[in-house]
Formats: sequence, C-alpha cells, structure tokens
Amino acid sequence: MSATAGQVISCKAAVAWEAGKPLVIQQVEVAPPQALEVRVKIMHTSLCHTDLHFWEAKGQTPVFPRILGHEASGIVESVGEGVSELKPGDHVLPAFTGECGECALRGNEYTVIHSGCLAKINPKAPLDKVCVISCGISTGLGATLNVAKPKKGHTVAVFGLGAVGLAAAEGARISGASRIIGVDLKPASKEVWRVTDFVNPKDHKKPVQEVIAEMTNGGVDRSVECTGNTDAMISAFECTHDGWGVAVLVGGPTKDAVFKTNPINLLNERTLKGTFFGNYKPRSDIPSVVEMYMNKKLDVDKFITHQVPFSQINKAFDLMVKGEGLRCIINMEE
Amino acid sequence: MSATAGQVISCKAAVAWEAGKPLVIQQVEVAPPQALEVRVKIMHTSLCHTDLHFWEAKGQTPVFPRILGHEASGIVESVGEGVSELKPGDHVLPAFTGECGECALRGNEYTVIHSGCLAKINPKAPLDKVCVISCGISTGLGATLNVAKPKKGHTVAVFGLGAVGLAAAEGARISGASRIIGVDLKPASKEVWRVTDFVNPKDHKKPVQEVIAEMTNGGVDRSVECTGNTDAMISAFECTHDGWGVAVLVGGPTKDAVFKTNPINLLNERTLKGTFFGNYKPRSDIPSVVEMYMNKKLDVDKFITHQVPFSQINKAFDLMVKGEGLRCIINMEE
Repeated sequence: MSATAGQVISCKAAVAWEAGKPLVIQQVEVAPPQALEVRVKIMHTSLCHTDLHFWEAKGQTPVFPRILGHEASGIVESVGEGVSELKPGDHVLPAFTGECGECALRGNEYTVIHSGCLAKINPKAPLDKVCVISCGISTGLGATLNVAKPKKGHTVAVFGLGAVGLAAAEGARISGASRIIGVDLKPASKEVWRVTDFVNPKDHKKPVQEVIAEMTNGGVDRSVECTGNTDAMISAFECTHDGWGVAVLVGGPTKDAVFKTNPINLLNERTLKGTFFGNYKPRSDIPSVVEMYMNKKLDVDKFITHQVPFSQINKAFDLMVKGEGLRCIINMEE
Repeated sequence: MSATAGQVISCKAAVAWEAGKPLVIQQVEVAPPQALEVRVKIMHTSLCHTDLHFWEAKGQTPVFPRILGHEASGIVESVGEGVSELKPGDHVLPAFTGECGECALRGNEYTVIHSGCLAKINPKAPLDKVCVISCGISTGLGATLNVAKPKKGHTVAVFGLGAVGLAAAEGARISGASRIIGVDLKPASKEVWRVTDFVNPKDHKKPVQEVIAEMTNGGVDRSVECTGNTDAMISAFECTHDGWGVAVLVGGPTKDAVFKTNPINLLNERTLKGTFFGNYKPRSDIPSVVEMYMNKKLDVDKFITHQVPFSQINKAFDLMVKGEGLRCIINMEE
C-alpha cells in the first residue's frame, strides 16, 4: 500500500478553461478510487488530435473547464474494492475505450480510472515511449494489422501521414507490404519515413484514386484512411483493386459527413470497413503491442518528435496546431 | 464423338427482335466449337431478372436481335481443340462469369461456350432442377455462405424476396441462423417460406433499418441486399449491428446510383461488401453446390414454381413481368 492510499491527493493539473485558450496549471484534488476503480500516477502523456479537437471545441457543445489528455502511461498508486488484476506499482497504459466506455481523462498528475480501461504492461517498458501506444499508435497499427490485414507482398495506400497514418504504414511494413503509398496534402517531409511512395493529390489533375490505380496496375490491395475527410474516405475506398480490395476508415468524420460511392464499386467485390482503436481490446491486446515494441518488431521511437516538461504543456498544443512533428511527450514529473 | 461433331447444327432458338416484344422461335445455325470452346446441347433454361433487364433494354443501348438466357443446364455435344477437361456426354452448367469473361448466351437448343465458363457436374443431378444453380441460386446462396458468412445463431436480414434473396435466406438457414428477417415491398406471400420474420417497409412510418434494429436489440449480425435499389442498400447496411455487423450487396444498381451513409456507421465497426455471382468460381465451386442439392443440404425444388415447354417461352417472360413465382424452367426438348 502506498502512503497516500485512501487519502485525497492534491496534485497539479493542466486545466482548459476556455476553447482554444492556453491551459492553466493549477492544483486539483483527486479522490481515492471507488469499487473497481484504480488511481494512477500519470508519468507521461502525449497529445493526440482528439485533444486538440475537444480543446478547440468547434461544432461542439463546449465542456469547460476540463482536463484533457488520454494518451498516457502511469503507475498504479492504489486500487479500489474488487480490483484483483492490478496492484500498486503496476505499470499501466490507460485506454479511452474499454468495458466501461468513455472514462476519466488524465492530464493531471494523478487520476482515477475504471480498472476495465487499464492495460497492465511489462514494467521494463520505458513509460516515456510506450505512452503513445495507449491511443494513436495502436489506432493506426491495429487498423492495418487487425482490420485491413494486408498479406506479404501487398500494396497498401495510407491517407493522412500524421502519427495515426504513419502507424498504419508501420503496420503495413510489419505485414511485409511490397509498396506503401502515402497520401497527404502536405508536401512530403522527413516524417514520411515509413512509406515507399508519396502522392500529394494537389500535384495531380485527376482524382487521386485514379493516380493510385495507375501506379498499381488497377488499384492497391489495401487502403487505410486516417484523415477523417470525406473526400479522402471516398478516394481511399475507390483506389482499392476490384475483386479483393479492402479499405479501412479510421479518421473520425464531422457530424454531418456523408460517404458516397457508386454501389458498383462494392459489387465489384471491394470491402469497406471502419475501425475504432484499431479493433484492439485494450486489456487483452495492448500489453502485446508493448511487447512488439520491446522485441523491436514495432518502431515507436520515431513517432516521438518532441518532449516537454509538464510546465510547458501549452507548447505541445502549439506544435500540434502548427502541424509540426508527430507526438510530443509531456513529462509529468518535470 | 457425336454424329454432329464438326458440323454446323441447325436448331431452334427464341430470338428477341425488339425491346419488350415476344420472342420468335426460329431456326438458327450453330457453328462447331473452336479451340478451347465447347458446344453444348441445352436441356433446360430458366429466366432470370437479368434476361428481363436486357429484353426490356431500358436505359441501355439496345442490342437486337439477340438470343437471351444464361441460367441453364446441358450436355456436351462436342469439344474444340485443346479442351481436355470436358468430353461429349458430360453434364454441365454454363456460368455467365468465368476466366473468359462474358460469354455466348444460350436460349437456343445448341450453343458454343468457352470451356472456362462450363462447370462439369454430377451426371445424376436432374438437369431440370440444377439449371437454376447456374446463376440466381448460386448468386444469393454464395452471398450468404461465402461473403456474409453468418455464424450459428446469428440474425440475418435479407432485402428482396425474389429467387436470389430467398437463396440468400436459404444460405442463412444452412448456416444455422437463429432468425431470418425478410424485407420486401410486396406483401408477405407463400413464397417467403425461408424467412422467420417478414417486414414490409410500407407498413412502418420509421425507416426499416430502425424497425429491424428494434426487433433485434440493436441490429442484425448480417444482412444481404438483393434488390439493387439504393435505398434498400443503405437500409441493409444501416440495419446491421455496430461492432461486428456485415452487409453484403448483391443487387445490381442503376448506372447513376449513389450509395450514401454517414461514415460513423462504418467507424462503428460495421463492414460493407459487395459480391458478384456469390464469389463462386464457377468451374471449381459450382459442382459442389450441385452436390449440396444432391445431399439434400440445399433446397432447390422450392425455387421452381413454373415449367413451360420451349414453344411457350414467352409465358415465362409474362410470369416474370407480373412478378409471379420464382423460377420458370423452360424445357428445351418439349
């Protein structure tokens, strides 16, 4: 038992008081865990576009004040009644999905999370790295490995080369894809380290699905859409080869988005799927993703382009707003 | 070798001279098979909606005169050079799809077909029954068995209760589905013998996908769309359960059809697929469908609601235009 077990913990949190305004670091109180809950000392957190989305609060009913952050790593501080699978000292990744649905957020030093939303991981895994596995990397990686399931030698198109898209490309590399075609509206940068070909739709007069079909003798075997833009979803679907092509939608659409295609594109034996958190079940599957990293099968380090102490959390928001880098790790103890 | 091998055969054919006008039975000449071709004595043929579609020729560049008919059974009369897998006397089902693509039609007593489009079947199979396996029944059955792949106990919705839809329902029964929900705009008739529930969208104020979701605690596990109507396709997709639902499109759309859905319906882990000829490879797979019938695993007899001699082929068109019955077998020797 830790000395703080059963006590309210006063700790620092980065509180968003208004849409788009800098977070304010202040003291908050974190209650002890109730039945089936776990209190976790957050060690690292990293910013995901979803945080930015809720912080900007565009087209939403704003919820403020709020403490953002859901991509994180931590150590169990204490457990509530009925929690048998976790104990103080266990290293964990919180997952935004789980048997309990949406759970507490964790941009503070301590947080209480339902035990169903915590994956117990190898204690040797560096928490400042595997932190990113708790959301974005698993979302993209799983979309490829669990849903698109490319075979060795397949061609794979990835739409959107942010962290999620590059994790999808990493999944294609692990699957033995022969070609990984990255599609992005931003010019190719040093971050497209995981693709073999790069297509910027702005460089072509014809629709990007036609460009890709020409590059691949009729279409790619698999495609993964990570932007959430409806036109990109349609392109990602239509750039797959008839007869066997599979397109997987990952990026979250706007509320009123409409996906449109001629049904003949489906009848020609293409498959269209969507996925949430890469179809991973957090408690059972995420520890094995951490092991993939530990066994050097999965590259995670390249996704971490920036690191800041907790006191500079607003810098992480600035970087993401500017579209600079992939993941910025926030060290909660600095 | 048959006595007619190598000779031109003069035989009867039902020729469509004009869109929507009765067929005229007249003599035609059928050339001997060339390399890799096979000449087949057609024993039975049955009408499929696709025949009606090309006969009505609405929204098409009309092609007349033409000899319709593609759902058929027959016996090999002679084979061309290089054909080693078939010999005179073999019982065969022609398939409209094959390694050679679209092939000759067969509403005449003899026809020449590429050997890649002929499935050699069990000679004990009654040709006046298994005839229907060569197109419609396999299309619906395969959509369920090969593409939707329901598990034992699953709920399955089938849109459109013509022969193809009822064959899809037959596939659901074979798979051990717990509930088979048939959807059709025509009132339930005696032909809905394969469904456990029947829904007529006209009987409800809310969209049929909502009606089905309420009937099934959130949605069916699988759905198969056999009408070709775009709204039905959307309903068939949206009536599947999130998390694991799979919808399969079978019905051919109109040229300018647009399938529309909110991408969130995909991101909620539904799958949308289409299929052509039930994903069966005709030469390798159709003989085993015939065996399913011979082993009494697959019911074919119930699909055959009418029979006419070749001389009354126009009656078969009348029945289909009126929407009466399922399949009308045309006996070529009568």
